[in-house]
Amino acid sequence: MEIKKDIAIIGGGPGGYLAALRGTQLKRSVVLFEMDRVGGTCMNYGCIPTKYLLHQTKALKEIRENKNLAGSAAGAALDWPSVQAGRVSVVNRLVKGVKFLLEKGGVEIVKGRAVLKNENQVTVETPDGVKVYAASRIILAAGSRVASLPFLEPNGAEVVTSQEALEFPSVPKSLVVIGAGAIGLEIGSIYRRLGTDVTVLEILPGVMPGCDRESATRLERILKKQGLNVLTQMRIENALVEQGSVTVKGACLKNNVPFEYAAERVLLAAGRRPNSEGFSASPMFTLGRGGFVQVNSRLETNVPGIYAVGDLIGGKLLAHKAYHDAVVAVENACGMERTVDYAALPMAVFTDPEFASVGLTQEEAREQGVKVRSGLFPLQASGRALTMDALDGLVKVLADESDRVVGAHIIAPGASEMIAELTLAVAKKMKVRDIGSLIHIHPTLSEAVGEAALKAKGLALHLLN
Amino acid sequence: MEIKKDIAIIGGGPGGYLAALRGTQLKRSVVLFEMDRVGGTCMNYGCIPTKYLLHQTKALKEIRENKNLAGSAAGAALDWPSVQAGRVSVVNRLVKGVKFLLEKGGVEIVKGRAVLKNENQVTVETPDGVKVYAASRIILAAGSRVASLPFLEPNGAEVVTSQEALEFPSVPKSLVVIGAGAIGLEIGSIYRRLGTDVTVLEILPGVMPGCDRESATRLERILKKQGLNVLTQMRIENALVEQGSVTVKGACLKNNVPFEYAAERVLLAAGRRPNSEGFSASPMFTLGRGGFVQVNSRLETNVPGIYAVGDLIGGKLLAHKAYHDAVVAVENACGMERTVDYAALPMAVFTDPEFASVGLTQEEAREQGVKVRSGLFPLQASGRALTMDALDGLVKVLADESDRVVGAHIIAPGASEMIAELTLAVAKKMKVRDIGSLIHIHPTLSEAVGEAALKAKGLALHLLN
Repeated sequence: MEIKKDIAIIGGGPGGYLAALRGTQLKRSVVLFEMDRVGGTCMNYGCIPTKYLLHQTKALKEIRENKNLAGSAAGAALDWPSVQAGRVSVVNRLVKGVKFLLEKGGVEIVKGRAVLKNENQVTVETPDGVKVYAASRIILAAGSRVASLPFLEPNGAEVVTSQEALEFPSVPKSLVVIGAGAIGLEIGSIYRRLGTDVTVLEILPGVMPGCDRESATRLERILKKQGLNVLTQMRIENALVEQGSVTVKGACLKNNVPFEYAAERVLLAAGRRPNSEGFSASPMFTLGRGGFVQVNSRLETNVPGIYAVGDLIGGKLLAHKAYHDAVVAVENACGMERTVDYAALPMAVFTDPEFASVGLTQEEAREQGVKVRSGLFPLQASGRALTMDALDGLVKVLADESDRVVGAHIIAPGASEMIAELTLAVAKKMKVRDIGSLIHIHPTLSEAVGEAALKAKGLALHLLN
Repeated sequence: MEIKKDIAIIGGGPGGYLAALRGTQLKRSVVLFEMDRVGGTCMNYGCIPTKYLLHQTKALKEIRENKNLAGSAAGAALDWPSVQAGRVSVVNRLVKGVKFLLEKGGVEIVKGRAVLKNENQVTVETPDGVKVYAASRIILAAGSRVASLPFLEPNGAEVVTSQEALEFPSVPKSLVVIGAGAIGLEIGSIYRRLGTDVTVLEILPGVMPGCDRESATRLERILKKQGLNVLTQMRIENALVEQGSVTVKGACLKNNVPFEYAAERVLLAAGRRPNSEGFSASPMFTLGRGGFVQVNSRLETNVPGIYAVGDLIGGKLLAHKAYHDAVVAVENACGMERTVDYAALPMAVFTDPEFASVGLTQEEAREQGVKVRSGLFPLQASGRALTMDALDGLVKVLADESDRVVGAHIIAPGASEMIAELTLAVAKKMKVRDIGSLIHIHPTLSEAVGEAALKAKGLALHLLN
């Protein structure tokens, strides 16, 4: 008694649910399997709740830093239970919205753990018994989860994942964050603003490994000024977990000096691993390094008709990368011919200021033998930044020898929005003069984008060249 | 004893100072005449101080609206003298910066009222006597000033210009704003947030005349919800100015019912007029409607070698329009061949949320016989907007029959930055799919830009089509 569908999708996160929505747009019958709630880690336990808490705590930070506030503003504090209720409500509303769209589109949502039986059958255990679905096209979108350390496993109390860190019932007095990537810096910022003593330990030489070094170094300096105790080249070797306290121990790679940090809680934010075990059990797939499912540029696995998307296939573990994958995979599943294109895949960290990037870093350009000129415009020279008291930041545009914009890096309030213009420039292989001569509204931070582009040619107007 | 320069520029506002900076980049000797301080109205008395006050009062608004703030935040208030000192300091710093750039570039800045003696001589009265400058190229950048009403002239007390409204020594209890354009809505918002009883009177049927009606109507509704008493189709016929109070009287054009509004202060924000009198006295120039100096597409006046830019020539009275003009005019003055291009000239109002536009409005498209499809994405469907508690807004993308993006209108926090991506799309004549398939960071408000573009084709993913 198998149920027939055109497309079966395993996992209801950004990759899975978007593939489902696009599939129904293309008039296919779609079943979507999800063990938990649709929206995945991103919507339920990741990006969305983090942004909500960042927004709330940023408001608090601004109140405290504004010297023009009279009266009682200095004593401002957040009512934590109320903030947590707000987080739940925001997440619930979004999940409900995605469910509504899926249902309107006619997607069958099946709650339960889906198992790939063979190349066109999926079984799922539901409260009503095991069901079997048949589909000639299957999309794997099972996502990823936090990677733990051999000596430090999440225990739901002292040692936590990002999900738990966003749901702390009370604000911890102290927090050690392992890993200075986006998750570590965002959650570290949230609690720092709430008064927590935050120590971020990173094994690599700087925050945001893989990002443009000049920009990341600037961000690191800014975050340190905000009281985030960021320490780099710190190799953690063991940990002592006691009730209400964790002590992590290791050695600094710079000088081999041992260190020891204790805190009420420790957050594991040093990488994620794909939820590929379910698929590796089947002999069908070849898994790559780190357990990621291997796909070709059409996102098809080695099994014809089975596609994989999002965190499960590795690359940049970003929700919008999963969205892009989802559209490519499902369109291929529907007979179109699409390949992924990550050349203009932007990323952002929602610290204050935000940090956003697209295209090549200066280091990647060097490795790839692309000779670039860098145009850097500091926000100190931006009128808009001055009116916002947000002078600590920059826009950096990298141009290759033919003057094409090949990369851009922004540290600014709203950098995650500003990067869209440069994403378009990188995607469309535009030249710096296309950006430099574009009319930007005055006064905006985006004027710095135009100026940075001009600067790459030695033609900045609001800055000495 | 005339002093010879390659280029003489009359007026040190955005149009004038930028022409000077670009002129020195092109290795020309430049003299810049300015009666007051460089930076012009925009930097000293307009855009910049307004943005500073908007930023400060927005913080206050957010504190009051945040239900998660515990303790004493509700009693937060701005220390007005401290805010005013902050405004002065921001403006001074920017003026100093522009002066520094001009001096580094070797521009001679002459303080005084410049008079065009003939087509290549300018005289200026300085404390050291009258000086005569000769230049084969002259750029007029004298800007504009507030237009007063026949029965209502600024008196520096009850009846004020935007400049004075930004410098009120104390927050007025009540304020009538005449004109619901950008200046009126921005200054109205500033004082509304400070507790002033603000009434905005507009003679036309809606706020932001000339803008996309659907969007402007939405903005009007939002501002009214914020307590701004916006009244449209209100023709003011006379006014009574007394010490400490002004009463404006007139009739509503909808029903001819007379009205009367009294307030401590009244702000004139119903248009500006060009500072062209000095030039019209000379028989050299033909002035157009409204007294604007007439120029061709190269920004040359009817006198060869004399160019005019910015507010003085009319069109959209925006600082970044003046910047664009400045570069075009000075490059032409230096022998290059440039024409102005206002097809992708964006504009913004820095209310909360901001409103930004580029390209055609739906009404302009209709008038021009351009058949457009509108893709509208409401911020209610944006995850990022939800995390920011900023659901009241929209992104609207207009596509012509060949799917080209011909206009875009955004109401959102940071709309003035988000519009840059769409400005680039309009400038480069891109199609909606170029924007719809671009990878936007999740979660950002810019995702709504991609969705609105998809929506114009009936292909939105996070919205029913």
